[in-house]
Amino acid sequence: MRIRKSARGGHLLMTGKRVLVAGKFDILHLGHLAYLEQAREIAGPDGELIVVVALDKTIERERGAPPVFPQDQRRRLIESLRIVDKAILGYDTKDHTTIVIDSQPDIVALGYDQITDIDALQESIREHGLNTRVVRLQKGKAGGLSSSTLIRKRIIEFYADNGRERQLKSQARPGPRPH
Amino acid sequence: MRIRKSARGGHLLMTGKRVLVAGKFDILHLGHLAYLEQAREIAGPDGELIVVVALDKTIERERGAPPVFPQDQRRRLIESLRIVDKAILGYDTKDHTTIVIDSQPDIVALGYDQITDIDALQESIREHGLNTRVVRLQKGKAGGLSSSTLIRKRIIEFYADNGRERQLKSQARPGPRPH
Repeated sequence: MRIRKSARGGHLLMTGKRVLVAGKFDILHLGHLAYLEQAREIAGPDGELIVVVALDKTIERERGAPPVFPQDQRRRLIESLRIVDKAILGYDTKDHTTIVIDSQPDIVALGYDQITDIDALQESIREHGLNTRVVRLQKGKAGGLSSSTLIRKRIIEFYADNGRERQLKSQARPGPRPH
Repeated sequence: MRIRKSARGGHLLMTGKRVLVAGKFDILHLGHLAYLEQAREIAGPDGELIVVVALDKTIERERGAPPVFPQDQRRRLIESLRIVDKAILGYDTKDHTTIVIDSQPDIVALGYDQITDIDALQESIREHGLNTRVVRLQKGKAGGLSSSTLIRKRIIEFYADNGRERQLKSQARPGPRPH
């Protein structure tokens, strides 16, 4: 059990933990939910789950293509989830120490597929005098479509022709379509 | 104010309303959220928001292409939203009367772009002795990407090559890619 100064300046007895997670969360799917649910479980019902949503420019740099949804839209969707207390935008840096210092979480919970060097981050946080623990979560049992790459592939397969629906064969025009 | 039998058999004084909404909710975006938020406002904080998620086969029939996300995944994501109390799968029929009878909502709130004939549905519900009111919501101020067609278009533009990211020019291979 910890005693933490609340945002309003009082003191609260808390058994829950403040957990920080991060991701792109571009097209929301059950894999994201499984990740957040694991983190929520660590935070506990009276804990706090804070989600860092990657900036567009960070995604563009990593992927070589912009996200489908701009950063503030991704942030708002994540914050609309029941188990999420707060969603904030990431910082424009590869070093995640600063956002951890600013958020003061008890735990940073990295996703199973996140490339962050867990030891380096833990070391850097410790050097700044924080007791935050960095852990890596297991791949959750999301089931179904829980990979952004597969989702985009499915969209491209099903919805060729510039995002319009492919017509059923019975409705298709006989000739080539105008552009 | 209404008195309604609670699920546990007791009686609750309720000022809130049970509101039923429906949609495909294939790739979750702020337009969906704006629709649900309007409905939640009608329901009130102690009301109930029930979301009907269209079956895959219904979408396939209407669009001529399957949804990106299978029905149960769409249902689970919608139910994970803070403002949603329950998400259920739709019925395999164009007549929405039965699901309204089964759910007993005070209000059915149709989206601005839903093709359902509001008068016919209201009439049919009334014939079955229900006081449910059918209303159509305005297009919300969602902002941003709030059209599934535009979202798919953006995905196809940015993510050609079977769903893999397009490489930045500086990283691109000089020759054509193998298939």
